[in-house]
Amino acid sequence: MKIPVMEVFGPTIQGEGMVVGQKTMFVRTAGCDYSCSWCDSSFTWDGTGKSVSKRPPEIIEELKAIGGQLFSHVTISGGNPALHKGIGELVDLCHAEGWKVGVETQASFWQDWLLNIDDITLSPKPPSSGMITDFSKLDRFLEKLADANASLKIVIFDEDDFKFAEEVHLRYPTVPFFLQTGNDDITTTDDAFLVPKLLHRYEWLIELAVNSPVMNDAKVLPQLHALVWGNKRGV
Amino acid sequence: MKIPVMEVFGPTIQGEGMVVGQKTMFVRTAGCDYSCSWCDSSFTWDGTGKSVSKRPPEIIEELKAIGGQLFSHVTISGGNPALHKGIGELVDLCHAEGWKVGVETQASFWQDWLLNIDDITLSPKPPSSGMITDFSKLDRFLEKLADANASLKIVIFDEDDFKFAEEVHLRYPTVPFFLQTGNDDITTTDDAFLVPKLLHRYEWLIELAVNSPVMNDAKVLPQLHALVWGNKRGV
Ligand code: SF4
Ligand code: SF4
Repeated sequence: MKIPVMEVFGPTIQGEGMVVGQKTMFVRTAGCDYSCSWCDSSFTWDGTGKSVSKRPPEIIEELKAIGGQLFSHVTISGGNPALHKGIGELVDLCHAEGWKVGVETQASFWQDWLLNIDDITLSPKPPSSGMITDFSKLDRFLEKLADANASLKIVIFDEDDFKFAEEVHLRYPTVPFFLQTGNDDITTTDDAFLVPKLLHRYEWLIELAVNSPVMNDAKVLPQLHALVWGNKRGV
Repeated sequence: MKIPVMEVFGPTIQGEGMVVGQKTMFVRTAGCDYSCSWCDSSFTWDGTGKSVSKRPPEIIEELKAIGGQLFSHVTISGGNPALHKGIGELVDLCHAEGWKVGVETQASFWQDWLLNIDDITLSPKPPSSGMITDFSKLDRFLEKLADANASLKIVIFDEDDFKFAEEVHLRYPTVPFFLQTGNDDITTTDDAFLVPKLLHRYEWLIELAVNSPVMNDAKVLPQLHALVWGNKRGV
């Protein structure tokens, strides 16, 4: 079953979430059922980017052609990769090569292949995105993933987002929980201007987390790739 | 048994290693059996700082007085905390409060209380430190910690350090492995100058890791606290 692929790149590092810093290849799929106001990957769904439909064995060959012997972890991102049933075969083929596989999804669509993923980041979207989380759906998602290596990650742009994050963390207290700063300037190419802004925002988020007893066991992270490479794509 | 305490502070976030981003309190102990050329905590052992000997229950009270209800994780750092047998009681008291405990040590001294630590970072020092790692000691350390939640972290200043890191990772391939940038300017108070330098160094380290097949399952991280707070202490 074919998968619409937007880009394959790496090796680089995972800049976010539960395996932050991990050396990895990226496969970015096209298409999203959401349209977050601040989406930093909108080229995957708004018509400005071009995807190519590929069979999983072709994607494996492309990963090998680009990454050679220099990786053992593949991150499937999007868009929302969970729209694509064909990823199940891709995951199996990666595992046959001895590679681990990570995925990030907003948890709006279930796929059985999620059960085979090595690190799963579920990222329900906070109010500033303009999206609404269906919590009964998220409940079922997390029930199914009870024995999986799954985490929750909430991107925070404002205090309402932080309140939303508190609710999510209180609802699923045993799921590893990550707070992440958002990037509200996804077009600038001036890193000397972007970096202090992102770090200031990170300091603000740390301050919120530090003062919230609900967040005592949370992890608070910036987006490392944005600090290093700004808004450049494909790194 | 008393522990020489340099400072107690927090809550803040852990800026490094296996629980990077974790909200935590810090207890910094005095004394180190090493004297790394680039030590960023030399006030713990070079006579420029002042420690106070405290019984573990006193330290618990101090943590509560400073952190209130705003934490559930305590990081014991140094110096080398593993010099102090008394930390065993402190760890037990933290656990009795329901707090988790993390420790970082260069793995030159063993203490049985290490078996009770929730996250252990072992940081053998690379050549640029001027210190020599006793690998037979490190072997025994890691054997004893086989069932613990332990990781290895190597700070990298130059390519020789990176070669040392490759040797360490190859010697203990199943232990979660972290590469970390060093800070070679531990006195500047000019963050506008420090941050781009640290990020440049991080990009350099990512590049080394990306091009090393030995590092395929490594995680590469900066020091987040240095990016946010520069060389300021007690944050
Ligand atoms: S869910 Fe992710 S990819 Fe989809 S619109 Fe939101 S931020 Fe963009
Ligand atoms: S082991 Fe750590 S505390 Fe001791 S001298 Fe080296 S860097 Fe400093």
